[in-house]
Amino acid sequence: MTVELICVGTELLLGNIVNTNAAFLAEQCAGLGLSCYFQTVVGDNGERLRMVLKQASERSDIVILCGGLGPTEDDLTKETAAELFGRRLVEDSHSRRLIEDFFKNRGIKPTENNWKQALIPEGAIVLDNANGTAPGLILEEKNGKVILLPGPPNELIPMFHESVAPYLKKCAPGVIASRTVKICGIGESSVETTIRDLIDKQTNPTIATYAKTGEVHVRVTAQAESEKAAEKLLRPTVKELKSRFGADIYSAEEDMTLEKAVIGILHAFGMTVTCAESCTGGMVSSRLINVPGASDVYKSGVVTYSNKAKRRLLGVKKITLQKYGAVSPQVAEEMAKGALLLGRADVSLAVTGIAGPDGGTELKPVGLVYIACNVRGNVKVEEYHFNGNRAKIREAASVAALTLLRSHVLACSTAASGGKKKK
Amino acid sequence: MTVELICVGTELLLGNIVNTNAAFLAEQCAGLGLSCYFQTVVGDNGERLRMVLKQASERSDIVILCGGLGPTEDDLTKETAAELFGRRLVEDSHSRRLIEDFFKNRGIKPTENNWKQALIPEGAIVLDNANGTAPGLILEEKNGKVILLPGPPNELIPMFHESVAPYLKKCAPGVIASRTVKICGIGESSVETTIRDLIDKQTNPTIATYAKTGEVHVRVTAQAESEKAAEKLLRPTVKELKSRFGADIYSAEEDMTLEKAVIGILHAFGMTVTCAESCTGGMVSSRLINVPGASDVYKSGVVTYSNKAKRRLLGVKKITLQKYGAVSPQVAEEMAKGALLLGRADVSLAVTGIAGPDGGTELKPVGLVYIACNVRGNVKVEEYHFNGNRAKIREAASVAALTLLRSHVLACSTAASGGKKKK
Repeated sequence: MTVELICVGTELLLGNIVNTNAAFLAEQCAGLGLSCYFQTVVGDNGERLRMVLKQASERSDIVILCGGLGPTEDDLTKETAAELFGRRLVEDSHSRRLIEDFFKNRGIKPTENNWKQALIPEGAIVLDNANGTAPGLILEEKNGKVILLPGPPNELIPMFHESVAPYLKKCAPGVIASRTVKICGIGESSVETTIRDLIDKQTNPTIATYAKTGEVHVRVTAQAESEKAAEKLLRPTVKELKSRFGADIYSAEEDMTLEKAVIGILHAFGMTVTCAESCTGGMVSSRLINVPGASDVYKSGVVTYSNKAKRRLLGVKKITLQKYGAVSPQVAEEMAKGALLLGRADVSLAVTGIAGPDGGTELKPVGLVYIACNVRGNVKVEEYHFNGNRAKIREAASVAALTLLRSHVLACSTAASGGKKKK
Repeated sequence: MTVELICVGTELLLGNIVNTNAAFLAEQCAGLGLSCYFQTVVGDNGERLRMVLKQASERSDIVILCGGLGPTEDDLTKETAAELFGRRLVEDSHSRRLIEDFFKNRGIKPTENNWKQALIPEGAIVLDNANGTAPGLILEEKNGKVILLPGPPNELIPMFHESVAPYLKKCAPGVIASRTVKICGIGESSVETTIRDLIDKQTNPTIATYAKTGEVHVRVTAQAESEKAAEKLLRPTVKELKSRFGADIYSAEEDMTLEKAVIGILHAFGMTVTCAESCTGGMVSSRLINVPGASDVYKSGVVTYSNKAKRRLLGVKKITLQKYGAVSPQVAEEMAKGALLLGRADVSLAVTGIAGPDGGTELKPVGLVYIACNVRGNVKVEEYHFNGNRAKIREAASVAALTLLRSHVLACSTAASGGKKKK
């Protein structure tokens, strides 16, 4: 069964707001096992809205419209749908009473145009709006269903959960389950090459790769009659991915991020971490601290952007800076050693590099970054070359730092436990 | 002249990501005086993409597609456009060389499918991608122009500014000039109320407000026959905005960010800055360091997430922490004082707050943040209440910190120069 989304609003066409409603509705519909092939945004214009709605209702089983149910003359969604499907607008006494109550409870006097919101296309199913005055509406047409929802997210989201999802569940033929296998430290094309054969023979489940900065996500999606059957379909593919990518997979959980995985590992090993950042300038610390509960693991860190700060706070030697330069494996190593002492932590991460746009030379071009990870004295230093503008290089360096931290802590801990993996 | 946006990606249809590209492109196109009536999202499916592209190219003068230019088999945008407009795919040696360089600089071996990205529809204008391997493409067809852009925002945004905007400017009938007045420290509805009369009577120039985290941008756009005439139309409105918002405007320059403005002010006054961050955890430092040339102004900073770190690195007193708690104006002030000494800077910024989701109490709820700014011993502490999730609260706190830094440095410097503004 297919669903199509139409978001109505000139503010979307002007880019004044980001279309979070589309993302919310899309995610919800996918979770209900509905296939969505098109999303459209159209302005508050009757003619164009009519054209878009006509096309959508012809090619999809369910059309969900959001926006344009307000009280003003701009708001045309209901009028356009009623006209297109040949339904008269009639006053719904239940909705009128709810609108009266809404204003009474807030001590506001409604204006004349508010009563427009009590008009509904004849025969429509009315969805009460607990957080506003525009009721939601469902039109059950011969060829499919058309659902009209208010635009403000704080009205749309509760209405969807309370009324629309239960309605759609009854319509949907099955369920969709999906799993995202998250990989760090390998590029997208290399990931794709590794699973070319799986992608080529995909049917159900389907497999898709998503490139993120420094990460690749592989999403496996299965459709079946029940949650259990869908999960069963997923299992062999997820298992195969795990066997092919091994430790490069940091998670197969939907809400897991790389920084969350890193915090989780440190937590499991009872280790604390500190950062000494030059070109990333606090970005690595900031990502780690964005994880709720990071305080158990992360106590302090420093940004040592100048050479003086590297010497004074981290004890990097003057001679090392002079001989090798601030962007060198030697300085990265000394930073990581100094950071461990200053931060009194078990693990430290040090980043030094040239983020540009200036400061690059032939020998040390913009994008050159050294990252050192020190696990209780066992230091690993890596050299990286990133492309892009300053922001992009810094972001890529931050992800690489977290990736190195993860792999080095795992390697040291495996070695320490005699090759056995600690649970 | 009309423009239409098509965003390609199954991840958008599944609601995995929010369509920020559409908002970015819509805002940019509006700023260029192009009318946008439709946005469409379609998945990585050749047949449906073809249908959407055909319709868009028939009803709009310019079609901008984003996404689906990657190296994998999923990526079909270029192939579909080439097929629809009857152009062969040919290898572009320039693009191939750039891809070679991209991998060489990173010390990575490209896989076979990477070379697919060097194929272009015959006769297309190639837009270099400084931040990735997929070039942008412009197809000049009889009835209009089709522009293909990479999906990752950090590739799309710079490419748009560098190559697409100058190209579109040449296409537009007449000239559009726009100016964005950037305001910090006031909410959107308050900004709107202040200029309600200007918005109501707008014709040419037009006025639109854009809410950003902690900022509001007011964009004034004028259309005229020449650059000079358009600029002349803008001037009175921009002047009026400046007179209404005064020092709350941090810039009216297109490429200016709040952190750039802050670095500029510190530079002008010959001051250095340091940060001591708790809940923002390096985010303020990271934003400052993202400004090229920040090294003249920013030397070092610390992340003091634990109470111990606040005491040990910043000299916050144990009694202050016990008496008032880590999230208090008193601790913020001591952090700012300690940071100035540790960082040996002229100005310090200290942030302490509860970013959630846990840790809130009735007296100190999630979202409570104290920020202190110390300008050579003159400390100002402010209390804030932010809404949203952890990431949102931390981001809002970072913007508020930069806003406070800006206003306090300006206030102290104006006072020091006897009320006269230093040039």
